[in-house]
Amino acid sequence: MQRLDRQIRFVAEIGKLKGVLRQTVLGELGRRENSAEHSWHLAMMTAVLAEYAPSGTDLARVTRMVLLHDLVEIDAGDLFAYAGAREQERQELAERAAAERIFAILPADQGEELRTLWDEFTARRSADARFARALDRLQPMLENVAAGGGTWRSHGITADQVLAKVELIDDGSRALGRFARDLVSGAVAAGILAPAPSGAQDGQTPRR
Amino acid sequence: MQRLDRQIRFVAEIGKLKGVLRQTVLGELGRRENSAEHSWHLAMMTAVLAEYAPSGTDLARVTRMVLLHDLVEIDAGDLFAYAGAREQERQELAERAAAERIFAILPADQGEELRTLWDEFTARRSADARFARALDRLQPMLENVAAGGGTWRSHGITADQVLAKVELIDDGSRALGRFARDLVSGAVAAGILAPAPSGAQDGQTPRR
Repeated sequence: MQRLDRQIRFVAEIGKLKGVLRQTVLGELGRRENSAEHSWHLAMMTAVLAEYAPSGTDLARVTRMVLLHDLVEIDAGDLFAYAGAREQERQELAERAAAERIFAILPADQGEELRTLWDEFTARRSADARFARALDRLQPMLENVAAGGGTWRSHGITADQVLAKVELIDDGSRALGRFARDLVSGAVAAGILAPAPSGAQDGQTPRR
Repeated sequence: MQRLDRQIRFVAEIGKLKGVLRQTVLGELGRRENSAEHSWHLAMMTAVLAEYAPSGTDLARVTRMVLLHDLVEIDAGDLFAYAGAREQERQELAERAAAERIFAILPADQGEELRTLWDEFTARRSADARFARALDRLQPMLENVAAGGGTWRSHGITADQVLAKVELIDDGSRALGRFARDLVSGAVAAGILAPAPSGAQDGQTPRR
């Protein structure tokens, strides 16, 4: 197949991401978010929040990572961030198989390049990847606040569970980590996020 | 207001783009495409089709242009590419007013930077902008082919009208322009795009 034909086939294939639904509910629209528009939102956040990335971060790489990070969901579907360990393992296997199939549609050089970016994102192997992951954690928190609780409420998530996820944000950007902690306190104060059940310690049970 | 607060307010505001519907119908999903997922698709196309940009093209700028090019539709809505001249003029005014409001949410330095990119895209003022515009024209053509005719059929668009738009693709990338012409011929041959009515000359009536 011609090089351009393979690239166009890939462009057509990835359009399916518009049909992959996330748990996040968009407050104003009253419907679930799909992974393509979520990825767009992260790319815009990369541009707007660039100054909170550690110095030396390659923002063009971060942008490409967030744009492609969910492509594997075309085959594997989206998994809720608070899913259990067994489900997370199953998801990882399904995502790796999806990466094999989807990136192979491209000419080999490009497929490898994009696959490397995805591996790096998934393994949080660089400062670029950690900043990208931080944005990926922050965006649904903003949507939940905008929706008056969103998946926190509908899934009975408590502040300690959210704060455990905030550690990933800290890891990518100290400033955004601080912002996220304030967001959690504000959400508890506003009554849209349940406080930690007595006995649980804030931020002590990170899962991934 | 603190700098980060303004940036987060902007991030929340632009989420509304997920609710702006385009004319394009996504064949597999049987629903209209929204402008956020369309913008994501263009950003992925920028990465995958980069080699067809004229040498010297700044792909990071192109990526940011395509990510933000439709933000003005949050206020102005989407206008069908084949709308009449009067509607296009009205749209331009509405979009400029929207740009004033939306980019002003950001801290001034960032608002100006993004506004400049949007102006450049809109006026097709640089090779970067012309490549971005080419992708913006090509993507709905691919969706129409995938949907077996899509808006070409539902709006009674003929090949000569599509070819007039292809001139914008030529202008941004010769190789993608050639590809788009082949796509049009193929669509006519496949019976999913009506041929030019007798009397019309292919590509002779570019509107914008």
